[in-house]
Amino acid sequence: MLTPYLGNYRWKDLPVKEYKTDGTGFKDITRQVLFDDPDLTCQLRYFEVQPGGHSSLERHEHVHAVLILRGRGRCLVGTRVIEIDTFDLVSVPAFQWHQFQPVGEEPLGFLCLVNCDRDRPQLPTEADLEQLRQIEKVAEFIKV
Amino acid sequence: MLTPYLGNYRWKDLPVKEYKTDGTGFKDITRQVLFDDPDLTCQLRYFEVQPGGHSSLERHEHVHAVLILRGRGRCLVGTRVIEIDTFDLVSVPAFQWHQFQPVGEEPLGFLCLVNCDRDRPQLPTEADLEQLRQIEKVAEFIKV
Repeated sequence: MLTPYLGNYRWKDLPVKEYKTDGTGFKDITRQVLFDDPDLTCQLRYFEVQPGGHSSLERHEHVHAVLILRGRGRCLVGTRVIEIDTFDLVSVPAFQWHQFQPVGEEPLGFLCLVNCDRDRPQLPTEADLEQLRQIEKVAEFIKV
Repeated sequence: MLTPYLGNYRWKDLPVKEYKTDGTGFKDITRQVLFDDPDLTCQLRYFEVQPGGHSSLERHEHVHAVLILRGRGRCLVGTRVIEIDTFDLVSVPAFQWHQFQPVGEEPLGFLCLVNCDRDRPQLPTEADLEQLRQIEKVAEFIKV
């Protein structure tokens, strides 16, 4: 019933899934699943992006509800680039391109709430990227 | 898409529902709904209990997934009284009696994740209370 917090944004017996730079578009990011209860219809995950890293640029039908737990950064939602800081809330609506990046020396850590029943993320095609890059501030922001 | 954090555990344009001591068993507790998106099957709420206050002693079929965001305290889950501190995670299974209380000078603030489709809480009858009070540490803990 209790999962103690161990400090440094780690929890007892919750595996930290480490990602590394690879072909799927994320860099220096870890994931811990905080709640995955069969009696809940949502999952709550904690993601952490190291300075210089980024989450994948993606979109999907399912929505994200995000609470920044650590650090600060910027995120793309649709065609907007938004400054985010600790305890800010971000809603990512269906089919909006999104990406999270830290700013400064501290990692960017955030809770991300999703429905258990959800579709797989889509990565941008070259045509999608071309369209996104037509907006200057988006072009400057996105990392793929 | 962005709901900025204002400091002091308040968010822009999110109403703070104030509870006061009344007949339904809670004391000095506020609630803010952080995410209530029609495309999400869960709700994420932030509760805050002032020193000396407590959440209601209740049970229900739906489960709670709780992340302590502020302060420390103790909670009852079933017949266990558990010490809780910032960023600890607590799962409240179906039909387990539960109550949250702060310890110390700071309020106890916690995120509470629930399914949108859920049953109404049940408050303890006198017979329930009598049974709970047969366990000494539970008897010492619960406030009604």
